Amino acid sequence: MKIAVIGHSGHLEKSALNDLCENIGYQIAKHGHVLVNGGTGGVMEAVSRGAKNAGGIVIGMLSGHEKGNDYLTIGIEMGFDASISSVFMMYNASAVISIGGRSGTALELFAAYLKKIPIILMDGTGGWTERMTKDLVDGKYFDENRIVEVRIAKTAEEAMRIIESIQVP
Amino acid sequence: MKIAVIGHSGHLEKSALNDLCENIGYQIAKHGHVLVNGGTGGVMEAVSRGAKNAGGIVIGMLSGHEKGNDYLTIGIEMGFDASISSVFMMYNASAVISIGGRSGTALELFAAYLKKIPIILMDGTGGWTERMTKDLVDGKYFDENRIVEVRIAKTAEEAMRIIESIQVP
Amino acid sequence: MKIAVIGHSGHLEKSALNDLCENIGYQIAKHGHVLVNGGTGGVMEAVSRGAKNAGGIVIGMLSGHEKGNDYLTIGIEMGFDASISSVFMMYNASAVISIGGRSGTALELFAAYLKKIPIILMDGTGGWTERMTKDLVDGKYFDENRIVEVRIAKTAEEAMRIIESIQVP
Amino acid sequence: MKIAVIGHSGHLEKSALNDLCENIGYQIAKHGHVLVNGGTGGVMEAVSRGAKNAGGIVIGMLSGHEKGNDYLTIGIEMGFDASISSVFMMYNASAVISIGGRSGTALELFAAYLKKIPIILMDGTGGWTERMTKDLVDGKYFDENRIVEVRIAKTAEEAMRIIESIQVP
Repeated sequence: MKIAVIGHSGHLEKSALNDLCENIGYQIAKHGHVLVNGGTGGVMEAVSRGAKNAGGIVIGMLSGHEKGNDYLTIGIEMGFDASISSVFMMYNASAVISIGGRSGTALELFAAYLKKIPIILMDGTGGWTERMTKDLVDGKYFDENRIVEVRIAKTAEEAMRIIESIQVP
Repeated sequence: MKIAVIGHSGHLEKSALNDLCENIGYQIAKHGHVLVNGGTGGVMEAVSRGAKNAGGIVIGMLSGHEKGNDYLTIGIEMGFDASISSVFMMYNASAVISIGGRSGTALELFAAYLKKIPIILMDGTGGWTERMTKDLVDGKYFDENRIVEVRIAKTAEEAMRIIESIQVP
Repeated sequence: MKIAVIGHSGHLEKSALNDLCENIGYQIAKHGHVLVNGGTGGVMEAVSRGAKNAGGIVIGMLSGHEKGNDYLTIGIEMGFDASISSVFMMYNASAVISIGGRSGTALELFAAYLKKIPIILMDGTGGWTERMTKDLVDGKYFDENRIVEVRIAKTAEEAMRIIESIQVP
Repeated sequence: MKIAVIGHSGHLEKSALNDLCENIGYQIAKHGHVLVNGGTGGVMEAVSRGAKNAGGIVIGMLSGHEKGNDYLTIGIEMGFDASISSVFMMYNASAVISIGGRSGTALELFAAYLKKIPIILMDGTGGWTERMTKDLVDGKYFDENRIVEVRIAKTAEEAMRIIESIQVP
């Protein structure tokens, strides 16, 4: 499966958040999945580093003429702005894991939801990821259309258990 | 100016919400602006009807092979899915007015914000529009990047006053 | 119907070619059709002028941040480069009329053909339009897949007769 | 570098053409380049097989819900139709090698040319590739805008020599 990880591109210090990102990337690769992400810094760089350390394949869907981070197996240049690239990234994911993040991450979450991509929100990571864990409709949907279930995980291991339970059509 | 109006496509009964939509469409046209919207039902049909009644131009940005509502001057077929069409619609708006709505509307709000399009949230219209009025950063931003101001209006007249104050670059 | 007209954006002198373009735009509008084009100069400006003189609606599908010509009813900003905009324009045409042109016009011709949009090549207008009139497979196709018929016309009137014979599905 | 190879998706018999395709794919990988193509059958399958046999990385840019061929390292689902995917593929190529092909290949050739991607036409492979070798402006351009040089090669080795001479900006 291709698993997308989304989150803020801002620089990540050595921190619990950085460790979580690296661990998630590592687990995705160890489970034999391909990591897909926006290919730049912050959360994306940390998960890419983790996946590369596990010998996995990392695809960066770059917007415009962005330079990819050092851990990408392949950078795909999408040729348009980040908002559109975000939506297209969802065509290439069997599930998405969301970590912190600002409006770009929120856009990606709604794009994933509207395309019925299973979503895992990493609890305690702040930003729009955390904000979206509140007030879910029936505790698991972004709206009354109940398009696809949104799950909440606290650790990389818990996120991977959810990933492994996904039945790809 | 081209003004985008976004909101839920579900059927609107005769209601205060329907009247608000028609009035907003009417005012947009009366002020000499072009109305841009998703071109289908619900909020979009009501604002289109209002703008047409005022003799205005209404552009519907249709996704896939959707059929436009009866009040469009022109339907532009975007040829791809609604999520992408939503983002593209924002290239064609000097401001966006948001009324109620579900995840599709939330996606459009974040797409507008990320493109620095001034946003007006219609207070009291429910759904994601209303939800986004809560917890704004500094009372006016969707995130700490403070990309563009988000304003809140209660009436069509108040929304138009905000529109008229916008300086197009 | 929406009728696309394609051709070179380079400046057109007062000439038979300019007159042909204006006449084609005029006829499209007089027959009650909407003119769709790339919205900029040269062939596009001349057909837009013709259509506007006949009181018609002219849609310009602009790429990037291009400025539209003076005869557009509406400019739609596509937000990406000309090659992609060209392909999208074909989602909005029931037929395409091709006049002279360089590689951009050739790209549009193949995009139209691949989408089964009936094509009319204006004979004697030079460039890729004229080049495509040679060596048509069975005298009317761009390749052995025989996707849609390509017709050749010498005058605006002849082009309009072909347009009027098109059965929109 | 990422090298795109384009051509007809129709089934290829065991033939000199099939051998040429496999050889080109093989050489691209042996020279350390990544092969990018449309990911489906015919020419694309044969070059993918060649590159995989050489241990290379093969990216297939799939349109819609196409199934990729058996030799792809990664299939990127573009989520829209083949014409658009073709144009996007060119954002991911430092050069393009063209082999035979019909209108889809012609569209890709013009998209590459308009984006200034160096083009190598494989002589004697028929279809639009061969047709484009005729009547080049100044013997090397698709039009008077002289956007990027078009080269003609007869063998995989000759194509690779041209590839190796390309200076990536």
